[in-house]
Amino acid sequence: MQKTAILLIHCPDRRGLVAAIADFLLSHNANILHADQHQDGESMLFLMRVEWDLSDFKLDLARFGMEFSPIAERYQMDWRLETSSPFPKLAIFVSRQDHCLADLLYRHRGGELACDIPLVISNHAEAAPIADFYRIPFHHIPMATGQAQEVELRQMEILDRHRIDAVVLARYMQILSPRFVARYPRRILNVHHSFLPAFSGARPYHRAFDRGVKLIGATSHYVTETLDDGPIIEQDVARISHRDQLEDLIQKGRDLEKMVLSRAVRWHIEHRILVYGNKTVIFD
Amino acid sequence: MQKTAILLIHCPDRRGLVAAIADFLLSHNANILHADQHQDGESMLFLMRVEWDLSDFKLDLARFGMEFSPIAERYQMDWRLETSSPFPKLAIFVSRQDHCLADLLYRHRGGELACDIPLVISNHAEAAPIADFYRIPFHHIPMATGQAQEVELRQMEILDRHRIDAVVLARYMQILSPRFVARYPRRILNVHHSFLPAFSGARPYHRAFDRGVKLIGATSHYVTETLDDGPIIEQDVARISHRDQLEDLIQKGRDLEKMVLSRAVRWHIEHRILVYGNKTVIFD
Amino acid sequence: MQKTAILLIHCPDRRGLVAAIADFLLSHNANILHADQHQDGESMLFLMRVEWDLSDFKLDLARFGMEFSPIAERYQMDWRLETSSPFPKLAIFVSRQDHCLADLLYRHRGGELACDIPLVISNHAEAAPIADFYRIPFHHIPMATGQAQEVELRQMEILDRHRIDAVVLARYMQILSPRFVARYPRRILNVHHSFLPAFSGARPYHRAFDRGVKLIGATSHYVTETLDDGPIIEQDVARISHRDQLEDLIQKGRDLEKMVLSRAVRWHIEHRILVYGNKTVIFD
Amino acid sequence: MQKTAILLIHCPDRRGLVAAIADFLLSHNANILHADQHQDGESMLFLMRVEWDLSDFKLDLARFGMEFSPIAERYQMDWRLETSSPFPKLAIFVSRQDHCLADLLYRHRGGELACDIPLVISNHAEAAPIADFYRIPFHHIPMATGQAQEVELRQMEILDRHRIDAVVLARYMQILSPRFVARYPRRILNVHHSFLPAFSGARPYHRAFDRGVKLIGATSHYVTETLDDGPIIEQDVARISHRDQLEDLIQKGRDLEKMVLSRAVRWHIEHRILVYGNKTVIFD
Repeated sequence: MQKTAILLIHCPDRRGLVAAIADFLLSHNANILHADQHQDGESMLFLMRVEWDLSDFKLDLARFGMEFSPIAERYQMDWRLETSSPFPKLAIFVSRQDHCLADLLYRHRGGELACDIPLVISNHAEAAPIADFYRIPFHHIPMATGQAQEVELRQMEILDRHRIDAVVLARYMQILSPRFVARYPRRILNVHHSFLPAFSGARPYHRAFDRGVKLIGATSHYVTETLDDGPIIEQDVARISHRDQLEDLIQKGRDLEKMVLSRAVRWHIEHRILVYGNKTVIFD
Repeated sequence: MQKTAILLIHCPDRRGLVAAIADFLLSHNANILHADQHQDGESMLFLMRVEWDLSDFKLDLARFGMEFSPIAERYQMDWRLETSSPFPKLAIFVSRQDHCLADLLYRHRGGELACDIPLVISNHAEAAPIADFYRIPFHHIPMATGQAQEVELRQMEILDRHRIDAVVLARYMQILSPRFVARYPRRILNVHHSFLPAFSGARPYHRAFDRGVKLIGATSHYVTETLDDGPIIEQDVARISHRDQLEDLIQKGRDLEKMVLSRAVRWHIEHRILVYGNKTVIFD
Repeated sequence: MQKTAILLIHCPDRRGLVAAIADFLLSHNANILHADQHQDGESMLFLMRVEWDLSDFKLDLARFGMEFSPIAERYQMDWRLETSSPFPKLAIFVSRQDHCLADLLYRHRGGELACDIPLVISNHAEAAPIADFYRIPFHHIPMATGQAQEVELRQMEILDRHRIDAVVLARYMQILSPRFVARYPRRILNVHHSFLPAFSGARPYHRAFDRGVKLIGATSHYVTETLDDGPIIEQDVARISHRDQLEDLIQKGRDLEKMVLSRAVRWHIEHRILVYGNKTVIFD
Repeated sequence: MQKTAILLIHCPDRRGLVAAIADFLLSHNANILHADQHQDGESMLFLMRVEWDLSDFKLDLARFGMEFSPIAERYQMDWRLETSSPFPKLAIFVSRQDHCLADLLYRHRGGELACDIPLVISNHAEAAPIADFYRIPFHHIPMATGQAQEVELRQMEILDRHRIDAVVLARYMQILSPRFVARYPRRILNVHHSFLPAFSGARPYHRAFDRGVKLIGATSHYVTETLDDGPIIEQDVARISHRDQLEDLIQKGRDLEKMVLSRAVRWHIEHRILVYGNKTVIFD
């Protein structure tokens, strides 16, 4: 498998940007595989993702920052460099419902998700068998009343020990503390079972059913301090009718949740998501 | 064209309901063309729409209520009888943007909408040419500050004079008074340019753009006293990406608005909508 | 769990049909839970599905046929009676790719699919672990060249022994013989990885990619003697773009295949599908 | 309104391409507004669309070819240069059904379509009023048996006289001769009322209805010598059920046809479509 580098850039839009970046990469013999850019006319921003083959790239990546910094400074770039390997390390958090977990682990095994999944953490035991089947270590950390702080400390200790890069909340029904969220900025992915901003908060299917909507939705997003308010990564919907009872909404919703969360995970680990303000650009 | 009767029923679910209705219709020689029913298991409700050919029906419709009342009383039915002709009379209200109006009038001319449209009312002059083209009388009633009450009185006088059955708000940007709304219960159809309940109120596309949603929507609903809160008839969505600027959302949204409003109008005039609580059943 | 009976009827459309059926059921004290009917105006056909609670139904189901036959004969009905329990027995056939199998077994365990799955049959060994995980006996019957007939005999012997009601081809890549197909009329469900009738036959994703379509699809259908030509049960599509390579089509297609096959299985085991001519009515 | 230039490039993928193009444009002071590129890994092709503001571009466009040719030759580029103004000139061909025509003219008037539409040509008179309403000259050229050649000569004479850039077949039910097609390579856009390649040829809705499909579709494509076989530009589908009769398919299909044709027209006139082989890249 080809090893590649991915450069993500975000800066004020100015003449000469593309030429500066392309010349820099060419001067080090980069063979560009994919390049995608977006110019936000309203906010005068330039956003770019460029990926190149590392096999004959002449610049040591350890020295990339030093070499690239003059360009970055000239254009006031906010940038980061990623590589396709080693794979990012993901921890999956889950509560009782394990459909998103089972879906992610199946895709992972089949090669759809280019990441390592060293562990699953749950406040319940239900999801242990599916994690075992895919040979992913399962950490059962029950959540007793008033123990949230201790539980989070244990969780963070485990994440640290495994040098986890990102956390996927795959129907994890606990609210993370601001301290936890701050530790993984733009690196905690959640799935909410509604078409946000509609029905943020608790029991969205019940509220959708009561309101009589004709479509239900699901949303994957990055977690921020404010509940269900982080940058949206993906959304999808399914049609319902009066023939659908509440349990039908929940059943149809599970398929939506799997789709929007698995797409978000894939885009995240392939470094296809750029967050700016409270919005995302998906370079797919 | 076949003349038909449509009976819409809504009552507590009880054994023998279908047999009672079917026997009654058969005893008067009804040839049933369509029958659709729904049993809401949660609220224990029975809802039905049945349509039959009137050509060899032996009961005078003027006497239908008297003959049907024993059954209706026994089963505590909330019911109404409609006929496919004469066509219901619709008034369309519009402001500056005339895409929904143009769409409805085109469909009406082509035979998609089985209704009469005796008039269009607008607080602006922009939509006059398209109404003229389809030979629909256009009433321009400008809305000066502080004149809302007078304007509504004039509107209602026109609606009365033409014996209007239902009002379609085809991007009419004024809020109707509770008095006006009360006069046309479940007979005012509106299109809101968002996926309700998300972005109810003003400037939904702007707010959707700012929130960074990945799908935009439109909703048709009956108007009640509470803004954007009436029973939802139809919703649809379109995918957007970071490449879509605000004006692209507005453009894509226009197509959604046309679709959801025209479907709602068709279902309304074909007597396919049953409202119960704040929800609708669509017998399509 | 409530035990119910489901009556499926298909006959020429005639006055009095609904009353005759409703009266018959009421006379035996049936409490109707769901009734859905369709009148095909073009072919003058009447199709109905009615489901009732058996707990206080006064007619022994063993005598249902005898009692119902006068009505059935008068109206020339093609009918069948099903019950919600015992569950129908499904065998799943699979080849190397096990995404549909894993999806069906997950849904089955979670209670979405009201059926028994006594066995999985495969011409390859790859799918054994997932069947084992869900504790479904896995029969590995390799397909050597020229052995098709012997393999089918062994398959049929196993199906007979387990009194299998229906066979689900969950990406089973062998073509069944006419003899096999004839033995399970309208009881073999297949998923084809294209939007039929486009790209019937081999390698549909390759051909879709070469043709440059903008949407890919999947189709679930009953198997008949003619390849990919049986009555269609469900179809769905996903948008693709020039950014999608062949492997992306295959990956996106897997999700479509799971959706359309699982819906077909659910509708089949809940007796919601009526086949007439080469078409299906889905009473959902 | 900003005047822009659009450069469309198509060549073998090679290192240094992006830098060469970006440097060339920068050397003439181009302010790039949008750039989008695609690398087809399978066929080793590079495709690019780049758009820049002409207001401070220092190179006279008349000399662009001469200046750019060294780069174009070095990289074996197939390229073309377009400008956002003057607008391209479109002729619309229509037969009896005018829903696509009405839709295009409405969008044109509202500013959605950046083109001139100097004329409509029809073999029938039905569409004259809607063309008149939008003040577009309407040429009624009836098609008598055996007169196809004369009719096409008259059509081509009119197209020549108006220096038409592209022809839009908006439900034009005549088949164009190879001679006509050859005269407008990749400049004749058609809408076919099926999800191609399914149901190419005549009466697609009838055949979709007979086959019992669960979704109907529409396709916009460039016209080539082989009927319904040209490069696909856009496709969309709508769900149908057994409740939909043939006329419902036709009605729902009209909305699909309008959507896929109007998108194709917009992408064509904004120079967002690159054809390679028998496929299209849409730079949206």
